[in-house]
Amino acid sequence: MEEQVIRLLEQRQFSQLRELLKEMEPFDIAAMLEEMPEEQLPLLFRILPKELAADTFVEMDSDTQELLIHSFSDRELKTVMDQIYLDDAVDIIEEMPANVVKRILRHAEPETRMQINRLLQYPEDSAGSLMTIEFVDLRKDMTVQDAFTRIRRTGVNKETIYTCYVMDQNRMLLGLVSVKTLLLSNYEDVIEDIMETNVIYATTLEDQEAVADTFAKYDLMALPVVDMEHRLVGIITFDDVMDVMQEEATEDIEKMAAIMPSDRPYMKVGVWDTYKNRIPWLLFLMLSATFTSMILTHFETALAVVPALTVFIPMLMGTGGNAGGQTSVTIIRGLSLNEIEYRDMPAVIWKELRVAACCGVTLAVVCFFKVILLDRKNPMTALVVSAAVLVTVCVAKLVGCVLPVLAKRIGFDPAVMASPFITTIVDAVSLLIYFAIASLVFGL
Amino acid sequence: MEEQVIRLLEQRQFSQLRELLKEMEPFDIAAMLEEMPEEQLPLLFRILPKELAADTFVEMDSDTQELLIHSFSDRELKTVMDQIYLDDAVDIIEEMPANVVKRILRHAEPETRMQINRLLQYPEDSAGSLMTIEFVDLRKDMTVQDAFTRIRRTGVNKETIYTCYVMDQNRMLLGLVSVKTLLLSNYEDVIEDIMETNVIYATTLEDQEAVADTFAKYDLMALPVVDMEHRLVGIITFDDVMDVMQEEATEDIEKMAAIMPSDRPYMKVGVWDTYKNRIPWLLFLMLSATFTSMILTHFETALAVVPALTVFIPMLMGTGGNAGGQTSVTIIRGLSLNEIEYRDMPAVIWKELRVAACCGVTLAVVCFFKVILLDRKNPMTALVVSAAVLVTVCVAKLVGCVLPVLAKRIGFDPAVMASPFITTIVDAVSLLIYFAIASLVFGL
Repeated sequence: MEEQVIRLLEQRQFSQLRELLKEMEPFDIAAMLEEMPEEQLPLLFRILPKELAADTFVEMDSDTQELLIHSFSDRELKTVMDQIYLDDAVDIIEEMPANVVKRILRHAEPETRMQINRLLQYPEDSAGSLMTIEFVDLRKDMTVQDAFTRIRRTGVNKETIYTCYVMDQNRMLLGLVSVKTLLLSNYEDVIEDIMETNVIYATTLEDQEAVADTFAKYDLMALPVVDMEHRLVGIITFDDVMDVMQEEATEDIEKMAAIMPSDRPYMKVGVWDTYKNRIPWLLFLMLSATFTSMILTHFETALAVVPALTVFIPMLMGTGGNAGGQTSVTIIRGLSLNEIEYRDMPAVIWKELRVAACCGVTLAVVCFFKVILLDRKNPMTALVVSAAVLVTVCVAKLVGCVLPVLAKRIGFDPAVMASPFITTIVDAVSLLIYFAIASLVFGL
Repeated sequence: MEEQVIRLLEQRQFSQLRELLKEMEPFDIAAMLEEMPEEQLPLLFRILPKELAADTFVEMDSDTQELLIHSFSDRELKTVMDQIYLDDAVDIIEEMPANVVKRILRHAEPETRMQINRLLQYPEDSAGSLMTIEFVDLRKDMTVQDAFTRIRRTGVNKETIYTCYVMDQNRMLLGLVSVKTLLLSNYEDVIEDIMETNVIYATTLEDQEAVADTFAKYDLMALPVVDMEHRLVGIITFDDVMDVMQEEATEDIEKMAAIMPSDRPYMKVGVWDTYKNRIPWLLFLMLSATFTSMILTHFETALAVVPALTVFIPMLMGTGGNAGGQTSVTIIRGLSLNEIEYRDMPAVIWKELRVAACCGVTLAVVCFFKVILLDRKNPMTALVVSAAVLVTVCVAKLVGCVLPVLAKRIGFDPAVMASPFITTIVDAVSLLIYFAIASLVFGL
């Protein structure tokens, strides 16, 4: 496909090129344009039919968008911005440098400019920042016939027409009616009689993660957003929520790996920003490893007496870390999907303890023979090591399930209580257990 | 809410209770019923209006569903199963024990039974297993007027009516037309002239992860599914895809934490299954730690000469593991969101090396002073340790970005190449680096 486009471009066969592009999806055209040499970008973009151009523009990454905007004439800029949905416009503007923003707003309709400015004020990741204000609103005294007329008249540039919202003169949300209901009712029916009155809604400042949960829970296609006075100010559509779900999952995953989350794709983040996102945790975890050093210093003599002990420290700590990591990550995910509540704590602990026991025993037994057969140490050492493994695994899994739940309880982000953090704690604990048992057995 | 329900139930005020429940969402009623004592479950369920009852049934977890089914009379069972959408029915059946499945199928309409059986044959996690066969189909010679008549007649129990699919006599997919287009066209317009002909579709055997990507990419509300002969066999709706997105993210997260993924919520998985999901990796990783033991055994004498070295092994390995983990997890997520391709490999490596250098230097410097000031060791030791940290971090990040990409390249699941696995490799490598530098400096 791409080769074909380039060839047609070089042969300046623009009409054919136009036909070809018309058959493609905005997302795919955007992906292709991003790969194109800068100088060809504006030309190619101008070939696109007006509407397709706008849809494509929305799908491009902000760097390419900025590049294009610079190449736009004021009229072109206006055409594009008028074509796209308001919430997309806001998303774009949020990524642009001040001078570009100024230019965009200068050429927007006064009405639009005002709306954009209002939307820009909502905190990032809030329902308000996700919503669009373009929806079909009806009055309760309309008939189905009126409703259809209104949809036909105003529907063209609404993001969704399938859920219509009923408001009173003060824009208070009274109810909603789906186009499905409209289609299955008689033209004479009055909206008030067929509308759904117990409406699920979000408030402008609600967190986008909560919004995503609501969508998943109730299988919604769109969710109305009301302000503090319960006035309907906008709607959120499912496609924006799908992106949020991906974002939120990525954020959790990054936190679990001891990374400060960044909401931009990996290839777009510079070396310096990547560094800044990673170094804090690395430093913190390295410094907190001081405890393990202290413990080992404390037992230096013991290690001198039974040097064989040193050999198994990495294996012991690794196993502990893995065991704890498994639990913490499972719990963290359960918490963020609301599958686990604080009140489940006892059940969780009880379950993890039993799992830990099973895992611990299995590992201990295998470890015992491994130490004797593979590492060729004496049974005494094998006993110490495997006993340490058993206890460590149990402690690790306990820590792994308690910390995240507690973290959430005290309003902390549980995702931080994942493997790296747990590991650092378990490392220290496992050493203490190890030497305690060793001293017992070898009477150090 | 719940207390109120229980009170009304005890006072046997069923009509009031019914009114109260009518105001609630199926998801919330289901959540409440799951908490109810078993004996009250059937009674409460029978109070629900027919349709609400069906919707609620779908939202319940399989244990509660099974419980209810056992309490159902054959007629009740039939009413519920007739009410719910076919794809939901199949999801339920997949979770039920054989005898229950038999009973369900025995009481289903022959037509329905045949369809259910067909859907049951698609592999789990395939587009076929996600799809519903209830959609509005149109013929290309219909007028908009005809289309609306057809929607009005057949739309009631279709999962979505907003995208209608145009087929020829052989059920070949010709195109689609959205209700929005229908509403904005004239009644006389012919479908063929207004339908969208370049349709994005999935094939029955396509993986659900690919399906989810398609939805996210193209902001679809529904996706048609065709069989090998390109005949339209069903559609997938966005709400099912949202669940898939959550599932897939969870699966990745579990794999990254060295757990065999299970597609059931944590609280529902028994101790034994949890054990089986976790023990294999724990065993494998413990045994592969044998390398670290071997390395340490090999350098026992060196450690005897400079016992101070032992003290920093955990810190060194921890830092290496964390550094590698950060990179691998970032890359893995990037791969599964298709933000990173194989061809990006050089760029990725080049970037990670620079990040690694920055992180490594920072950590090394801090580490140097930490060892001298906090751990009170001599500068020589500090030098060795911090040098080891620098090199380890670089190697760790390199391993962390190369392994996942290679894994994907050779058709492996990259998610497995996360922290635990990387850590085990890095542990061994970091020790080798450590002792190499130590021997150099102390001439061991």
